[in-house]
Amino acid sequence: MDQNLSPVELRHMIRSGEYTGNTSGYSRGFVQGNLCILPADYANEFLQFCQANPKPCPLIGMAAEPGDFHIPKLGEDLDIRSDIPSYRIFENGELVREVTDIADIWRNDLVSFVLGCSFSFEEALIEDGLEIRNVSEGVNVPMYRTNIDCTPAGRFSSKMVVSMRPMIPSDAIRAIQICTRFPAVHGAPVHFGDPASIGIRNIDKPEFGDPVTIRKGEVPVFWACGVTPQVAVEQARPPFCITHSPGCMLVSDMPNSHLAVM
Amino acid sequence: MDQNLSPVELRHMIRSGEYTGNTSGYSRGFVQGNLCILPADYANEFLQFCQANPKPCPLIGMAAEPGDFHIPKLGEDLDIRSDIPSYRIFENGELVREVTDIADIWRNDLVSFVLGCSFSFEEALIEDGLEIRNVSEGVNVPMYRTNIDCTPAGRFSSKMVVSMRPMIPSDAIRAIQICTRFPAVHGAPVHFGDPASIGIRNIDKPEFGDPVTIRKGEVPVFWACGVTPQVAVEQARPPFCITHSPGCMLVSDMPNSHLAVM
Repeated sequence: MDQNLSPVELRHMIRSGEYTGNTSGYSRGFVQGNLCILPADYANEFLQFCQANPKPCPLIGMAAEPGDFHIPKLGEDLDIRSDIPSYRIFENGELVREVTDIADIWRNDLVSFVLGCSFSFEEALIEDGLEIRNVSEGVNVPMYRTNIDCTPAGRFSSKMVVSMRPMIPSDAIRAIQICTRFPAVHGAPVHFGDPASIGIRNIDKPEFGDPVTIRKGEVPVFWACGVTPQVAVEQARPPFCITHSPGCMLVSDMPNSHLAVM
Repeated sequence: MDQNLSPVELRHMIRSGEYTGNTSGYSRGFVQGNLCILPADYANEFLQFCQANPKPCPLIGMAAEPGDFHIPKLGEDLDIRSDIPSYRIFENGELVREVTDIADIWRNDLVSFVLGCSFSFEEALIEDGLEIRNVSEGVNVPMYRTNIDCTPAGRFSSKMVVSMRPMIPSDAIRAIQICTRFPAVHGAPVHFGDPASIGIRNIDKPEFGDPVTIRKGEVPVFWACGVTPQVAVEQARPPFCITHSPGCMLVSDMPNSHLAVM
């Protein structure tokens, strides 16, 4: 399929069921987001959790009220029930199935949240000439559980999950500068260097994603990761929850550059 | 003496000969600068060297023409011949003496350059709550020759000299963010971590300044240093040159915050 489709064209292909795959590399230049849909009973606490932990949980949009399946800020005609290629349905914290449309199971008490994702800052880094190892090796970014506590909110709590990209120090400094401009997509890294000092035991065995090569002279650089809120939701075990399937993101009409604070 | 004197009050004390000491800690909040005075024959090449190497040689002011001893941008009534506590006179690259006034040896072909110095960014880091080891240990910052080539210009060339401040990684990330705002005082660090990869053989034996403690969990963070242009001048061996004595800086009327680019 044509990767250069505009976000709205891509969403219409997805809405009609013609595309149900990974959105990585599609509609370059536009923000892609993580989806989390929760019952209203859990929504305020989840919102507080995001507000208290903006680096792992950068909220870039939410539905105006329970039952609302539009987020016009992210796409004028966006329908959250059909415009994501693949959804995961959770009951009591357990994955029960994956579907390509949730219109038939939509409820009037569901609140939709969209969180920024690393695609946006990876694009900014690549445009600046930096190599992103998981991109050049064609694998998922390695992600690790850490010993860094998120600030809990109501029933939501989690250790921070981080993603890792190896770089030589001068590139890491440049990456810190660029990512600082993008607080809505995890912002600057939270750590670099010694994995053990943030509780990572084996850098070659990520808990999520795939390992990548770390070359001589490179240091691992760690960013707060959007898997963190997923872990928090798993631990909260809400009776019902819907997320995107990994890699199958909400593709918005918002240019990445709109997320730059300076 | 009262460290809270305004820059103009301090300069008047210095001009009258009442104060001839170190300016560190005086007139906090205002830019202090490195002085370099060269004959006109060398001035254009030195200017080109600074322009080509802005991180080690951040020019914040220069006299409008040879013989001019005012730089109103840095101080309305500033007189470059008397307002620095101590000067070093070099002939053919050799230090010949230190004096507290250069009015009697002033020449109509001398061009004055003022370069930003690390005091400004150290102040910004301390205000943000970061510890600067050389400040808390009350010593001069450790400085090292590296294997990083500056871009040569005419008779001026040098390896980059760097200063080093140890920090835990999360503080180093914050320091990179803050220093990025201050390109006129060396800007973001140029390296962190392994000293050998930039040609530093022994981190405990700085070529200039004093060693500082590096604690467990900390990494050395390296900034381009204003000693670099001094080394370039030494190597160029101009027949005549005047600089400030180490630590005895030009105290300007410019608030540090005026150097922030954002």
